[in-house]
Amino acid sequence: MSIKITGSGIYLPPKVEKSKTTAKFINESTEWIIAKTGVEERRISEIDVDEMGAVAARKALAGNGIPDLIINASGVPKQTIPDTSVFFQRELKIKNVPCFSIHGTCLSFLIALNNARALINSNIYKKILIISSDRGSIGRNPKEPESAALLGDGAAAILIEKEETNSKNFHYWKMNTWSENAELTEVRGGGTFKHPLNPETSIEDNFFTMDGPSIYKSARKKAFKMVLETFKNSGFKKDNVSWVIPHQASLKAINAYHDYGRFEKNKIINIVSKTGNCVAASIPMALAIAIEDGRIQRGDLLYFIGTGAGLSMACALITY
Amino acid sequence: MSIKITGSGIYLPPKVEKSKTTAKFINESTEWIIAKTGVEERRISEIDVDEMGAVAARKALAGNGIPDLIINASGVPKQTIPDTSVFFQRELKIKNVPCFSIHGTCLSFLIALNNARALINSNIYKKILIISSDRGSIGRNPKEPESAALLGDGAAAILIEKEETNSKNFHYWKMNTWSENAELTEVRGGGTFKHPLNPETSIEDNFFTMDGPSIYKSARKKAFKMVLETFKNSGFKKDNVSWVIPHQASLKAINAYHDYGRFEKNKIINIVSKTGNCVAASIPMALAIAIEDGRIQRGDLLYFIGTGAGLSMACALITY
Repeated sequence: MSIKITGSGIYLPPKVEKSKTTAKFINESTEWIIAKTGVEERRISEIDVDEMGAVAARKALAGNGIPDLIINASGVPKQTIPDTSVFFQRELKIKNVPCFSIHGTCLSFLIALNNARALINSNIYKKILIISSDRGSIGRNPKEPESAALLGDGAAAILIEKEETNSKNFHYWKMNTWSENAELTEVRGGGTFKHPLNPETSIEDNFFTMDGPSIYKSARKKAFKMVLETFKNSGFKKDNVSWVIPHQASLKAINAYHDYGRFEKNKIINIVSKTGNCVAASIPMALAIAIEDGRIQRGDLLYFIGTGAGLSMACALITY
Repeated sequence: MSIKITGSGIYLPPKVEKSKTTAKFINESTEWIIAKTGVEERRISEIDVDEMGAVAARKALAGNGIPDLIINASGVPKQTIPDTSVFFQRELKIKNVPCFSIHGTCLSFLIALNNARALINSNIYKKILIISSDRGSIGRNPKEPESAALLGDGAAAILIEKEETNSKNFHYWKMNTWSENAELTEVRGGGTFKHPLNPETSIEDNFFTMDGPSIYKSARKKAFKMVLETFKNSGFKKDNVSWVIPHQASLKAINAYHDYGRFEKNKIINIVSKTGNCVAASIPMALAIAIEDGRIQRGDLLYFIGTGAGLSMACALITY
């Protein structure tokens, strides 16, 4: 028994912010942004994460009926309580469907995909809707120009169903977390540590903060090792991979899968120049875009890989 | 193949706040608190959720080795990013173990338990540590006396392992979400909706708010139906249940499992008078306390049931 990706959808907010505009916000030049991040433009959402996710979800569900579980797999919630999945259910006007959230920052979607596969394999659910919706633009800190230039808004939804044939589509999963790097990517506010009612909490605690160069340095070796292990342990060869779908952390991070990972550049789905880093939505957005434009075809072998705050890394090998 | 609960631990903060003290904070009487909530005393933590959870986790892990997955299943995080599981890993000084969070407010633990069972059934992980740690006292609103009187702090950790024998221990699972009741329990702040940088966000948005009477009214019928369905669909009879482990929402909510659910009062684990409502930690705390004091014995049939913000309800039938 296995799973199948049966639906996908994306929400790209209509408002485009060119790097020329972002440059003024962070007091740098357009050229500096392109050189540091590779982001030419990003979308800025004027609707909240629940509405964004619902637009993507309606596309993923079109013609596919009603899911029996909704998982929110976003990086930042709409509010602390209830979790965002509830607001997705409400926006979608779907009744009698349980909802919860999975959170592993930028890896939330991959972790949800792996949990969805286990839930379907165990005959607990049959049709699971995973929605990732992030509005990173809200937390941009103009005093931290690199991360502020990277972030963009977007949402994607993926529908996972039980594969009724004998074909096994989910081939490999690996995740790890190195908590000694917990401070490399943070939004310190919003919880018990830097609570809004705590007089020691500053405005900056509510901004997104990321030490890009340190993450890149730490993650490059970890990613290299994860790729090596995948093709040592999965029974697949690197050449079998049709498409690499990496987290869209930055252009440099994506290119590392070519420069160091030795995947062909034209096999790596790269949307970062037009969307920026959309936190947890980046991976499913890259997937949904490449399905929509016809690059990804049935039977293709997809290699998902990425980093998340923690520092965590995960990868999955799945036949579309 | 099935799962087994192999370890459990609890952290009860040493600082006790009697209802006499809480009464002053909310400008009501001790008698009013006891009548409305049934809470005589609650604990107030002076350490943060990651340290609280780690104390409980060390007890759950004692003699059991290292887990291969850590799931944070709390109601409110330490910070927005990274998710709290990373901080548990760091506090526990455990290396090379992936971590993520599952969030369904007060049902987070039950949802994590169901996901852990699916992950183990699917041979993805073998030994999963679930930690629920909540510090609800921080978000108490003195102007909302009933919810402020209810909340307390605490943490619990449960270790789930693969059951190597043929015995099936996880018998039944059901969850549902009614998002039309999303506003009945909220912490509106901490995310994109009432973001700290949004000038329209007020101090009150960061408090816990709960319309207890409306939840009770809505949840009582839903719980009654869920109990009926459990014993119609699971192959077990209500009389087979050794212990009911409800979410410790309030004394009235717990007693409803006797008054309307028709379970014997002495079979219902009730810790609310001494701990208050500890959000997601309440259910695993009740479980860990009843294991520790010897009430729960191997072979006992446990019926977990509870409500969470959303409004969601879930139940699980598990042999200890």
